[in-house]
Amino acid sequence: MTTAATTRAEANAEAVRRLCAAEPVVVDVRPAGEVLPGYTPGLVLTSGAPLPWPQYAGGQRDAIIGGVLFEGLAATRDEAIAALDAGRVRVGSCHDYGAVGSLAGIYTASMPVFVVEDAVHGRTAFCNFYEGKDPRRLNYGCYDEGVHQRLEHVNTVYAPMVGAAIRRAGGVPLKPLIAKGLRMGDECHSRNTASSLLFVRELLGAALDMAGSDLARVRETFLHIADNDYFFLRLSMAAGKAIADSIGGLAGASVVSAMGFSGKEFAIRVAGLGDEWFRGPTPTHEGKLFPGHDESEITWMGGESPITETVGLGGFAQACALPLQDYQGGSPEAMIERNLEMYQITAGENDTFKIPLFGFRGTPTGVDVFKVLDTGILPVMDVGLAGRDGGQIGAGVIRAPRECFERAAARWAEVYPRS
Amino acid sequence: MTTAATTRAEANAEAVRRLCAAEPVVVDVRPAGEVLPGYTPGLVLTSGAPLPWPQYAGGQRDAIIGGVLFEGLAATRDEAIAALDAGRVRVGSCHDYGAVGSLAGIYTASMPVFVVEDAVHGRTAFCNFYEGKDPRRLNYGCYDEGVHQRLEHVNTVYAPMVGAAIRRAGGVPLKPLIAKGLRMGDECHSRNTASSLLFVRELLGAALDMAGSDLARVRETFLHIADNDYFFLRLSMAAGKAIADSIGGLAGASVVSAMGFSGKEFAIRVAGLGDEWFRGPTPTHEGKLFPGHDESEITWMGGESPITETVGLGGFAQACALPLQDYQGGSPEAMIERNLEMYQITAGENDTFKIPLFGFRGTPTGVDVFKVLDTGILPVMDVGLAGRDGGQIGAGVIRAPRECFERAAARWAEVYPRS
Repeated sequence: MTTAATTRAEANAEAVRRLCAAEPVVVDVRPAGEVLPGYTPGLVLTSGAPLPWPQYAGGQRDAIIGGVLFEGLAATRDEAIAALDAGRVRVGSCHDYGAVGSLAGIYTASMPVFVVEDAVHGRTAFCNFYEGKDPRRLNYGCYDEGVHQRLEHVNTVYAPMVGAAIRRAGGVPLKPLIAKGLRMGDECHSRNTASSLLFVRELLGAALDMAGSDLARVRETFLHIADNDYFFLRLSMAAGKAIADSIGGLAGASVVSAMGFSGKEFAIRVAGLGDEWFRGPTPTHEGKLFPGHDESEITWMGGESPITETVGLGGFAQACALPLQDYQGGSPEAMIERNLEMYQITAGENDTFKIPLFGFRGTPTGVDVFKVLDTGILPVMDVGLAGRDGGQIGAGVIRAPRECFERAAARWAEVYPRS
Repeated sequence: MTTAATTRAEANAEAVRRLCAAEPVVVDVRPAGEVLPGYTPGLVLTSGAPLPWPQYAGGQRDAIIGGVLFEGLAATRDEAIAALDAGRVRVGSCHDYGAVGSLAGIYTASMPVFVVEDAVHGRTAFCNFYEGKDPRRLNYGCYDEGVHQRLEHVNTVYAPMVGAAIRRAGGVPLKPLIAKGLRMGDECHSRNTASSLLFVRELLGAALDMAGSDLARVRETFLHIADNDYFFLRLSMAAGKAIADSIGGLAGASVVSAMGFSGKEFAIRVAGLGDEWFRGPTPTHEGKLFPGHDESEITWMGGESPITETVGLGGFAQACALPLQDYQGGSPEAMIERNLEMYQITAGENDTFKIPLFGFRGTPTGVDVFKVLDTGILPVMDVGLAGRDGGQIGAGVIRAPRECFERAAARWAEVYPRS
């Protein structure tokens, strides 16, 4: 073994150690504009490696415009477009502000975000709130009066109540909830049924304490969480971002530190290559559509929820969540096989996230760029599928494109010429 | 096929239909003495086919004596024994009063019970409350000041609060919770982690409403439930009893309608053979003991929680609950194989209780006495294991003894001579 290879193996082992050692804790809920580092009022964040504004298209473009309108940065769609064209409203990439975006991933200054701290590595990450069950959501490219009202309700009711409960509880460590969720049918990306309930359980005492003074809002908020299996995803994503950031810039490590996509490109970051994005085409997919929709409608409008796969959850834990076969299609056998495949492209196994079906083997953790290229096995991700007219139309499994890994390997050869 | 065999197949199909059609709903919590039909104040119920008082031994005898003391039917252990010897306190069998007992299964008049109604078949079943996590419990043969206090706390705090919440919620249908629990890692016998939380969710609105007027007791009660993964077992057992009673006395059906044991005998009832118990020796077992205990300590002191297996849960759904490998030992492979085996001895598959790992195949439902004898495959059950000094010392899988099925078949030949 060459010294370089030894060094890389050691760096990747350190990457897996960090991914396992991180301890994300949600400590607060605050408006994005107040807590995201470097945030400015006229800024809208969206998913994927950054693009110049004119290159955002389709649902992702509509979502950005919707964000401008929701935030009151423009009064009409035309004015919003003019403001974006003129640069009076800027578009940024969620990851550059410590955040991750679900689907189109729109953040505006007033939107409340979960504040998740990892004290072990001194990182803080953020994710905004689930919009609710209605398939028409801003993050799925929709903006109308209903979307506006639901977002406003998050801002004025759900977020303040949840934030108050989190502070009253003194913060909620997320890793134990995720670990329990994996024993209860979740993979904490496309299935969060148990972890949403476990989160309610953590806040139950606070909610009961708060009920005396503000029953209506407390009641509505906690019944909303308890009735929305997807609520926890945003906490899982923030936890994933906090965990993944522990390896950001780790010299010599060929482990992926972020995966996500815009409507135009899939892209990855690699620990040993810093903040650079390695881009490729949009992902391939197999999925299951809601009744009344067909394949031709599927459109890409972004998604950074694969931060969960980056840290050994989601598709990398899908053998924990076999009930997903109902939601995203496929068979238990296919899910198990895909999950097992991921061990071939990862640098280690998680010591906290475990798979009961595999005798509590740790989830495959830390995608190694070179193992992906050597085996030809591409990372799998469980995601929601958006329709070209906006809204969620189904769910499925996607694969990252090989090009991202090829480009990362090419850069690797430049940065680490001896390996 | 003979007419008799056709008739039996039809009757068994009807049994499976009823087991699937039942809709148990918990509607109230009331003292056993007020709601169990035929209950008299000086009555203590225990698990298993009835025995004369002198034949109850070991932990089960101690549990009965503890019940007499808890209820204040005697002031000392000697007085309790004297009262039992003289027949001033009588011992009855839970099943004869519409109830099922966990382990030794002690009921006394003041003990609160869940009242579970199945409106489809007009049955009502009962189960008393979980005593809590302390391994020293009355139903595990222990009685001391701590046990007394914990039971008293159930009577005065947990049961009244839960009862009030259930009434306020207008009752809680249990089958949807069980069906969801099976998708979330429960088999609703030895694992009730998700279903306990799902039950909390159903009562969350009521609990919040009640918090304003009685915060301390509401808070304590609901945090207790949310923190006690076993809480739901008693609801699952009552649901199981309500479901199983739908086939009690169903002429011509060779499907088992109850399984349970005393410290002395395992016994089954068969739908087409009415209330008669067919007895055999205590079950065989394989299990995992808590640290500091060994096999020689395992003792049988009763158990009617196998009513859950009788209706297609517990061991018959263990492939839903692979995390149990930690608690009761064994491997995922062994659990899956045992679960699959049960299809060979059952009359049908459940249309509500489904196993994600088997592509949502319904759980094997309705043990057919003749299939057990033909295949030699004995029903499996997930149970807690008691120690000879009282208390829980582990958990494991037991098998019903073949003798019960042989005796049932012998009676069958008398009752249905043409088959």
